[in-house]
Amino acid sequence: MKSESGTASLGRFDFACGDEIESLEVAYEAYGEFNGDNAVLLCHALTGSQNVAGYTDEETDGQARAWWNDIVGPGKAIDTTEYYVVCANVPGSCYGTTGPASTDPEGEVYATDFPPVTVQDWTRAQRQVLDTLGVGRLHAVAGGSVGGMNALDWARQYPDDAECIIAVAAAPRLDAQSLALDAIARRAITTDPNWNDGDYYDAETTPTDGLAIARQIGHVMYLSKSSMQQKFARRAAGRDARRDSFPVDPAAAFFPYRDVESYLDYQAEKFVDRFDPNSYLYLTRAMDDYDLAEGYEDDARAIAAFEGETLLISFTGDWHFTTEQSEALAEAFRSVSTPVAHHVIESDHGHDAFLVEPDKVGPPLRDFLADGINGRAVHDTADSNADNDSGFAPVHASLFSQ
Amino acid sequence: MKSESGTASLGRFDFACGDEIESLEVAYEAYGEFNGDNAVLLCHALTGSQNVAGYTDEETDGQARAWWNDIVGPGKAIDTTEYYVVCANVPGSCYGTTGPASTDPEGEVYATDFPPVTVQDWTRAQRQVLDTLGVGRLHAVAGGSVGGMNALDWARQYPDDAECIIAVAAAPRLDAQSLALDAIARRAITTDPNWNDGDYYDAETTPTDGLAIARQIGHVMYLSKSSMQQKFARRAAGRDARRDSFPVDPAAAFFPYRDVESYLDYQAEKFVDRFDPNSYLYLTRAMDDYDLAEGYEDDARAIAAFEGETLLISFTGDWHFTTEQSEALAEAFRSVSTPVAHHVIESDHGHDAFLVEPDKVGPPLRDFLADGINGRAVHDTADSNADNDSGFAPVHASLFSQ
Repeated sequence: MKSESGTASLGRFDFACGDEIESLEVAYEAYGEFNGDNAVLLCHALTGSQNVAGYTDEETDGQARAWWNDIVGPGKAIDTTEYYVVCANVPGSCYGTTGPASTDPEGEVYATDFPPVTVQDWTRAQRQVLDTLGVGRLHAVAGGSVGGMNALDWARQYPDDAECIIAVAAAPRLDAQSLALDAIARRAITTDPNWNDGDYYDAETTPTDGLAIARQIGHVMYLSKSSMQQKFARRAAGRDARRDSFPVDPAAAFFPYRDVESYLDYQAEKFVDRFDPNSYLYLTRAMDDYDLAEGYEDDARAIAAFEGETLLISFTGDWHFTTEQSEALAEAFRSVSTPVAHHVIESDHGHDAFLVEPDKVGPPLRDFLADGINGRAVHDTADSNADNDSGFAPVHASLFSQ
Repeated sequence: MKSESGTASLGRFDFACGDEIESLEVAYEAYGEFNGDNAVLLCHALTGSQNVAGYTDEETDGQARAWWNDIVGPGKAIDTTEYYVVCANVPGSCYGTTGPASTDPEGEVYATDFPPVTVQDWTRAQRQVLDTLGVGRLHAVAGGSVGGMNALDWARQYPDDAECIIAVAAAPRLDAQSLALDAIARRAITTDPNWNDGDYYDAETTPTDGLAIARQIGHVMYLSKSSMQQKFARRAAGRDARRDSFPVDPAAAFFPYRDVESYLDYQAEKFVDRFDPNSYLYLTRAMDDYDLAEGYEDDARAIAAFEGETLLISFTGDWHFTTEQSEALAEAFRSVSTPVAHHVIESDHGHDAFLVEPDKVGPPLRDFLADGINGRAVHDTADSNADNDSGFAPVHASLFSQ
């Protein structure tokens, strides 16, 4: 697969908050060849990176690398022999794009002097990266989770720039429960004394405990209740090796160190090695802040100027971004006669399904990119509602089954 | 209402873990008059206390006081003019019963030298308190949440000692998701440097940040997704006063301090004033450890010796202790022909419904105490299943509705 990895120097960048930085660098990767009308922009999730695919023989390292390797590549659902696929690391992140861990023109680490970022900033930075690559109008913008919010933002901010939008496991805005859990996760970081008001880049110790707890909260949000039960139940861990990941008191030794703890501790350990704590604060706030209807009366009016087609994919086991949220959004598209298909996938994998169910996600993506909402594998709740009065409701039984 | 508040000195107490302490003091309260066969033992929830009722003009302070004031009292569902109601603070807690914050016979604070406690220890301590009060056989043992697990433990440990058991919003054991969230909450406490290996009782600073985060995680578990959305949505808080409850970086100021954060911060602030961080570690571990089937082949065999009647009450919006878990337990009772009714209450209040829905919880409690599973207001899923093939499944729609 032909691929290109680079950094676009965008110069001065004005953030939506009113602040600016002198020089925004955006790391991106591109796969395939541009032929003028085959560009697909992919938007990564919260802790993802620009590296969408290509590391076939290596561990994917939890979204840091090759997060859609099963979906994107030659002959895959997003076929890089057909499409020119671009993904850019968002401003505020830590995979090569300027963020809190970067240095300012004077050589000082920004830390928490970095301007607050929003999803709107991400979209605008992506637009500018595409300009440097000579890409004007896109065939599609696609993304999962907050990357799906980012894709939806394209329909609002640049309604003429994409033929179609794909938002997987996304929502027009977070609900109160998700806002609460994100806020608690941030508290875990900022109460870690090693956070030190965000100034830890030259310190010997960094707020790894706080970031680990934040990640563990997130991890539970991304899994479904029943998939956790099936995967871990109440089993003790095979090895106690990771039991000392966090401080414990002597009384803890009487109780098993459970498989589910060992898993979360292992995942957190990997995560703190790859992610910047300040970036976690910045990016979760961008996600929390995102509201498709902001500045408009409602979601329908926010996307009314977009005349392309939209595919929404949701997962029945996702309690973070629910099927109901995607359905409400589909209704908003329908109400302004914007062609939309809301494709519901039965999956017990929770929010993570958009990463780990390529066999179910791939076909509707492939067929939508080729034929829009009339694509063969693309299903729409509006059709199933016509067949069946109960619509997609029954799918939720799986959420709480044991 | 006649009420009595006291401390039972139980002397040396051998814990299930094999350790012992020289002197276990158990704080209890009792309401009404004992007439030989009218005793009802109530088991409090995780952070509850022995004070079940009676503070009608005061704030209930989140389970610390008068946690079932709407249910227990003269003329109420558990009528103290009819029943002699006893509640004891569990070993390991911090409301007068010996726990980590108590001093040992040498005058040293136990801290984390306190033996690990289990629900079985709670049950045995309650048995001994009742002995000191002259109460042999109980009319009923009732409890909510982990208090319901405690009540179920009576059926296993003292099957001849109670005529009936009531477990509200309970389960025979926690599932992987709840175990995970409890474990993360404990990590928040033990990574707080002020926890200091549990030795903070003489310190100027205590691990309040860690305990606050632990409580906030718990709080989200106790509410339903839709009730949080209805109560808070994405609203900004009316006042920013509590915004500095936790450290924040300057970039945070660009974003709203939300109502849901303000609520969680306020609740956490109240909680850290009333609860001991080490007790939170000890009691959550007791809850996590509880498994009704432990030592038996399954739940049915664990309660086979109990010949009384059992009422299980569950709530449709409870994602912490689910209706499915109660139904599976009801099936276990049915399989050994132990009379049981599983009464499902439609409520959007999540796990907290057992505290905040007295109008729905009271009638089945009252009628079950009077007439057992044939009580007028007591419904059983087995009956509704007979009427209706879909059983209680439709109730879950409310969990994820917006």
